[in-house]
Amino acid sequence: MLDKLIINTRSREEFVEITPQVEEIVNRQQIKEGICLIFVPHTTCGILINENADRDVQRDIISHLKKLVPPGSSFRHREGNADAHIKSVLVNSSLPLLIEKGYLLLGRWQGIFLAEFDGPRRREVWVKLVKSS
Amino acid sequence: MLDKLIINTRSREEFVEITPQVEEIVNRQQIKEGICLIFVPHTTCGILINENADRDVQRDIISHLKKLVPPGSSFRHREGNADAHIKSVLVNSSLPLLIEKGYLLLGRWQGIFLAEFDGPRRREVWVKLVKSS
Amino acid sequence: MLDKLIINTRSREEFVEITPQVEEIVNRQQIKEGICLIFVPHTTCGILINENADRDVQRDIISHLKKLVPPGSSFRHREGNADAHIKSVLVNSSLPLLIEKGYLLLGRWQGIFLAEFDGPRRREVWVKLVKSS
Repeated sequence: MLDKLIINTRSREEFVEITPQVEEIVNRQQIKEGICLIFVPHTTCGILINENADRDVQRDIISHLKKLVPPGSSFRHREGNADAHIKSVLVNSSLPLLIEKGYLLLGRWQGIFLAEFDGPRRREVWVKLVKSS
Repeated sequence: MLDKLIINTRSREEFVEITPQVEEIVNRQQIKEGICLIFVPHTTCGILINENADRDVQRDIISHLKKLVPPGSSFRHREGNADAHIKSVLVNSSLPLLIEKGYLLLGRWQGIFLAEFDGPRRREVWVKLVKSS
Repeated sequence: MLDKLIINTRSREEFVEITPQVEEIVNRQQIKEGICLIFVPHTTCGILINENADRDVQRDIISHLKKLVPPGSSFRHREGNADAHIKSVLVNSSLPLLIEKGYLLLGRWQGIFLAEFDGPRRREVWVKLVKSS
């Protein structure tokens, strides 16, 4: 079964934590052992793991990615969001996680984030659990 | 079963779309639900997802990665392709995708690309489907 | 079953090869076909694949990542390791690999590395094999 989360982002660049929604899917499907694959079907946002305790970490990541890939006029792509496409490649669109004894496994400080680079937009996050036989 | 695609790249840096070949593998193996894992067994190229509609997006990604990791003499690795190794790390060698109802799931604008950073070369892309039980 | 490797890193920034330990897990569990998912439950290190023949490649990757994300005072995160969080995002926390005929599949020059960006620390690497049915 495929679950789809709908996330309405509010800014051009923003990280939205989705850890509780993913955990809810794992709990509901009652899969004991396997993989949880999280996927964004978009080319100007990404999916990532990082610290969810201090929100300044998210701000630092966003602002440093902006330094590495500044928006600007030197890109060929005429929609004006080439920077967001490049950040999406650096961050990735697909994230496989572990399920063990019915729980999504994450480290103590880890959260799962949709990384918006070209919002505000309505985004989907696709989540599929694959049971280990 | 493991499928191997052979891609002969033509330039030092180039993205080669492989979406149709991967879709053909998913169709042929008739797996209804699971994961499609795509892997490049090389250290100077990568595998990525991004827009396949406007080819300028690919050109922008390639040229910006070159700005971030310029080839040059300041690297220790003596083969002269350290920049390609670093880009391979930024882009990744492994890409898990979703299979649902027999189809490879991708967003409307997403394509799968072999990202060549040290061509022209003969590259392999390994594809394996894992059925969800 | 989940295997946990314990890695004690020795420097702030260092790559530690873990290919033999991961291969040992694949051999011991005797899974013929499937996926080996490697995951670091930390937010200031990562997991990556690259060349393990010439150690200069690892040094070039580490030193170039430092150029791209210099440690410094301009970050908001007060623990002083924002650069490590950002590198962890660029490199990734999760790496799915292929298992075929009982073997972990890697290219001839590929090794698996824990990428430490905020050591020395005691790190865990979680490894789970998912059998293809």
